[in-house]
Amino acid sequence: MGERIAVLGAGNGGYALASDLALSGYKVNLFELERFREFNLNPIEEKGGIERDGMRSGLAEMDVLTSDIEEALEGAKIVNVTIPAFAHTEFIELMASHLEGKTVIFFPLNFADVKLRRFIAEKDLGVKAIIAGGETMPYACRRMKRPAYIFVRWTFPRTRVAAAPAGDTARLMESTKGYPINLEPVSSTLEVSMAYENPLGHIPMMLLNAASIERTAGKWEIFYDTLVGGKEREGKPQRSQEKLIEAIKHEQSAVCEKLGFSFEAEPYVGELPSPAVPWSLDTYWSMTDRMNYRYLTEDVPYGLVTWASFGDLVGVKTPTLDSCIQISSVLLDRDFKAEGMTVEKLGFGGMTTKQVVDFFR
Amino acid sequence: MGERIAVLGAGNGGYALASDLALSGYKVNLFELERFREFNLNPIEEKGGIERDGMRSGLAEMDVLTSDIEEALEGAKIVNVTIPAFAHTEFIELMASHLEGKTVIFFPLNFADVKLRRFIAEKDLGVKAIIAGGETMPYACRRMKRPAYIFVRWTFPRTRVAAAPAGDTARLMESTKGYPINLEPVSSTLEVSMAYENPLGHIPMMLLNAASIERTAGKWEIFYDTLVGGKEREGKPQRSQEKLIEAIKHEQSAVCEKLGFSFEAEPYVGELPSPAVPWSLDTYWSMTDRMNYRYLTEDVPYGLVTWASFGDLVGVKTPTLDSCIQISSVLLDRDFKAEGMTVEKLGFGGMTTKQVVDFFR
Repeated sequence: MGERIAVLGAGNGGYALASDLALSGYKVNLFELERFREFNLNPIEEKGGIERDGMRSGLAEMDVLTSDIEEALEGAKIVNVTIPAFAHTEFIELMASHLEGKTVIFFPLNFADVKLRRFIAEKDLGVKAIIAGGETMPYACRRMKRPAYIFVRWTFPRTRVAAAPAGDTARLMESTKGYPINLEPVSSTLEVSMAYENPLGHIPMMLLNAASIERTAGKWEIFYDTLVGGKEREGKPQRSQEKLIEAIKHEQSAVCEKLGFSFEAEPYVGELPSPAVPWSLDTYWSMTDRMNYRYLTEDVPYGLVTWASFGDLVGVKTPTLDSCIQISSVLLDRDFKAEGMTVEKLGFGGMTTKQVVDFFR
Repeated sequence: MGERIAVLGAGNGGYALASDLALSGYKVNLFELERFREFNLNPIEEKGGIERDGMRSGLAEMDVLTSDIEEALEGAKIVNVTIPAFAHTEFIELMASHLEGKTVIFFPLNFADVKLRRFIAEKDLGVKAIIAGGETMPYACRRMKRPAYIFVRWTFPRTRVAAAPAGDTARLMESTKGYPINLEPVSSTLEVSMAYENPLGHIPMMLLNAASIERTAGKWEIFYDTLVGGKEREGKPQRSQEKLIEAIKHEQSAVCEKLGFSFEAEPYVGELPSPAVPWSLDTYWSMTDRMNYRYLTEDVPYGLVTWASFGDLVGVKTPTLDSCIQISSVLLDRDFKAEGMTVEKLGFGGMTTKQVVDFFR
């Protein structure tokens, strides 16, 4: 009989991780907020599990489907939180007082550890837990239009993880030995959060394809067309896309360097990990039909803005990050620089680089 | 017998203006640099004129086809210079000493008046001429692939012009009474140069379509698809494109306001002047197949960079201009900010706004 484990959040990432864990022998408690229950949990109940396809297929049965946080955490030693960064605060407030003795891992981390640690301290909860996270969701996946279904194109070859403080990372690795995904420990959760890679691919893709996204209303294979090169140019990915990714990566790396670790982003263009399922219109997902999509609304404020803000802290100029933030703000009529997660909002305002780095040790 | 007139530069704009003037009864001297003669002049000689189609058609005979600047200017009271801004210095050096008593009009102006006035003063040439310019080429046109052929989709409803100093503008208007295009006098050549509109449409179009331009290698109708909305969305132009155009226009206008004139750019998206020839793949031009194209290589350094530099002078922030400059630089591996035309390069370094404005009076 397998170990009980919790997965909080039943979106794309939650479906992929919960099904992977269940098929690996874990007893999974899958939690979703009440307001998303009908869409995200009920179909699983009706079907008797999550139908998984692509890399690893099968019907993955969930042990508990719930919108009750206490029920979700009951008996689970590890709590996986698979939600976007803008929802972290809501989940932290829900679960913080129930985490005693548990390990909580955010996918992606996006500095949720800082927020959780501060919340526990400020509310004087006295909860002792291993607080950890991975750089991103370890799956390239989509739920498509079918109920209780997840298609996983590939699992990332590695996912950087760490605990905060860093001394807890060894225990984190011990407790996740049975995971079906390859977790690679790194120096600290600061390194993990800064290694969030989604903006690298997503933002150039959105900006340099804006006109096509709107014109075709999503009726084209944006990943295939841009990252692999499309039917016309298979194997010759878009040069502009590559240039913009490289420039963003370059500035991100320079900031990481000053924070004390070297960050080598995964190759993104033209060298995608071999997919288990070949690219084709039948098996791949259709793209967003609009610019107002999480590839910008999540990755700009919780990726570029955060990196640029750390750039200010450590004295590294980030003109390309700043430009992508500005143009995204113009296109979506928002002020991502003001909305986004910054050094100040994380509570590091006025600190030196050394003081910030020490916080994560 | 018509008045003799010179057109210098035999590209798209030169073909359109020279043919328009010839069909209106002028005797046209068409000049092209020796190194472009074979491609730009010889086909006209072989065909016996420029074949013009679209708005106004006919075979427009040229009186003189030459690569000799003295022959080109001989007997011509008005000299029209139809070349991109990066070539201005070369043409100014060629023609400056032959301009006595003539009117020279640059299409587009792009501050060529400042360069010419400085050149005449620095070389102590003592040449007296009316130095003037229009905001842009008054035609939307392409030579397509046929020799000695120009297709003019439409003639702009008005083209802002002025002379430098501004007191000469009345004489400019008098001498261009016979022009087949509608020239509208404005306050000064500063206003004309700042009214260069190409960057508004071209740059958002290039950046927001980068992936498609490269993927399809130009095999789509970018103007039709982006500005009119394409087959899928005719009449509903791209929202993102519109947003970016508006943001650029907003910053450009703010700079103009501080320079003492209000600049109302032509509507660009969804309200294009009714074309004489309907949009269709047969009659319209095919788009560039690459990002390394004058819509960026001309319009970023001689448009956005210049406007941003005047923004610095007058104390107006230009984050969207700066962002488009940066991203264009990244995509083309260039430093447009360093290459482009700035207040300093125009010789206004260290001047106050008032001193600069006075220079154009």
